[in-house]
Amino acid sequence: MKAPHAAGPLVIIGGAEDRTGDARILRAFTRLAGGPKAHVVVATVATEQAADVGREYVDAFRRLGAKDVVTLDVESRKQACDPGVLDLLDRATGVFFTGGNQVRITHLLGGTPADRLLRRRNEQGMVLGGTSAGAAMMSGTMIVGGVSGASPRANIVEVGPGMDFLHGVLIDQHFTRRGRSGRLLAALAQYPHLLGLGIDEDTAVIAHDDRLTVLGDGSVMVYDLGAVSFNDVMELEGTKHLTVCDVKLHVLADGAGFDLAARLPLPPQDSTPDALSPNG
Amino acid sequence: MKAPHAAGPLVIIGGAEDRTGDARILRAFTRLAGGPKAHVVVATVATEQAADVGREYVDAFRRLGAKDVVTLDVESRKQACDPGVLDLLDRATGVFFTGGNQVRITHLLGGTPADRLLRRRNEQGMVLGGTSAGAAMMSGTMIVGGVSGASPRANIVEVGPGMDFLHGVLIDQHFTRRGRSGRLLAALAQYPHLLGLGIDEDTAVIAHDDRLTVLGDGSVMVYDLGAVSFNDVMELEGTKHLTVCDVKLHVLADGAGFDLAARLPLPPQDSTPDALSPNG
Repeated sequence: MKAPHAAGPLVIIGGAEDRTGDARILRAFTRLAGGPKAHVVVATVATEQAADVGREYVDAFRRLGAKDVVTLDVESRKQACDPGVLDLLDRATGVFFTGGNQVRITHLLGGTPADRLLRRRNEQGMVLGGTSAGAAMMSGTMIVGGVSGASPRANIVEVGPGMDFLHGVLIDQHFTRRGRSGRLLAALAQYPHLLGLGIDEDTAVIAHDDRLTVLGDGSVMVYDLGAVSFNDVMELEGTKHLTVCDVKLHVLADGAGFDLAARLPLPPQDSTPDALSPNG
Repeated sequence: MKAPHAAGPLVIIGGAEDRTGDARILRAFTRLAGGPKAHVVVATVATEQAADVGREYVDAFRRLGAKDVVTLDVESRKQACDPGVLDLLDRATGVFFTGGNQVRITHLLGGTPADRLLRRRNEQGMVLGGTSAGAAMMSGTMIVGGVSGASPRANIVEVGPGMDFLHGVLIDQHFTRRGRSGRLLAALAQYPHLLGLGIDEDTAVIAHDDRLTVLGDGSVMVYDLGAVSFNDVMELEGTKHLTVCDVKLHVLADGAGFDLAARLPLPPQDSTPDALSPNG
């Protein structure tokens, strides 16, 4: 049975991941793509600096041992129907979306044969990765713009349909560095059925079926508004400050995870749980 | 019976409050101090720029209608025993602590006759106010230093004993502007029995007995770690990232409040509650 949330493996990166050092996250992506046997496509659809951005990732994935690494830029929806493009994606064992503007990805790929192929291949096990804009587009609803460094206020964030590779979540990236908890909370107040994932730079969420695992040097903040007791977002005009009560927040570091189906955090496996129960 | 948390009214400001415009927060302080009959003492203990800082607040409180406004600087513990100083505080209807360094306040006043007198007068109804450092020192445990703009990590925040005018909480100020959710969460992970109050600039928490009310143009973020299911702060070395699961977060705007005894948020009173109950 298909899991309700994700299907194949996803590597969702909060931006600015290490590419030239130990590169733990890109290394994990390469391994998921098959390691030495990996055929990696670096999709630069999100950016207008395709050549420069693409070269950096090609160098990184080659250094990390991928056998075959090519870039793919798509500049029109017509290109996303091109048999050569589809053939390339069909042979890939991993497709990695660079940063840029997430709306370029949905605008150029959404609903095309390339989109359908990516979805099918991911369901079959091909890893999909994305950083920054390439991370934002992974969810069914994505943040397309908003105010960073702000408190949670009405109308400071704009969302739109994402590529929906990971269902039921809303992703924000560069999370701590750009102070985005306010805008993510504002978006979640509007759409409290979505689970908010605030992903730090050089930090990734690895998703597989219903299970998320954190990898990297930062935090992933998970906001669950499923049980909020008060939320005045629908009553506020302009950019007034929100009141939202009983938000559940999970702070997750490297090795910790989250079960999307159960909406429960998964502590790091190598960690001795703190004695928090009354019997502890 | 004395309430377990606060006694007399407290006005706890996240810094950078409006002083020259509508000045809603300083106006509320002045009203609590008796309005036209107010005798306000501006305590510049926290700052080494006592003259400049003091003058600004004297001008503000006079403009807001307080009858009698004087500054009080204390540069030694001996001064905090001086009969003239004690007499001044004894006649005050409101004492306002400016910003600066919170450790100066505890270092110079903590445990002195002036400290005891302030406590007694506050219990009798005299309003105590403080902004920035003057806000931080209000709690029993206060943040004395830490990293702003960081994710929640071990050992990025230092706490010490505060003046304990408001018991059972931990206050952080300039909250959104300086990106302090990480350091406040890190401190609370160490001391989860405390309730975290992250107060934005130009925003105040008015405390009276067990009840907090938000006043101002920003947010107050209330973090409750009382029911966390996992917390690895005691196992981490260096500045490793924390995993803390099941934090409760309340986002409170102007007019919203919090019941400290019940640990429950109080929605704004003029607000129609959103239909969040199953019967709604």
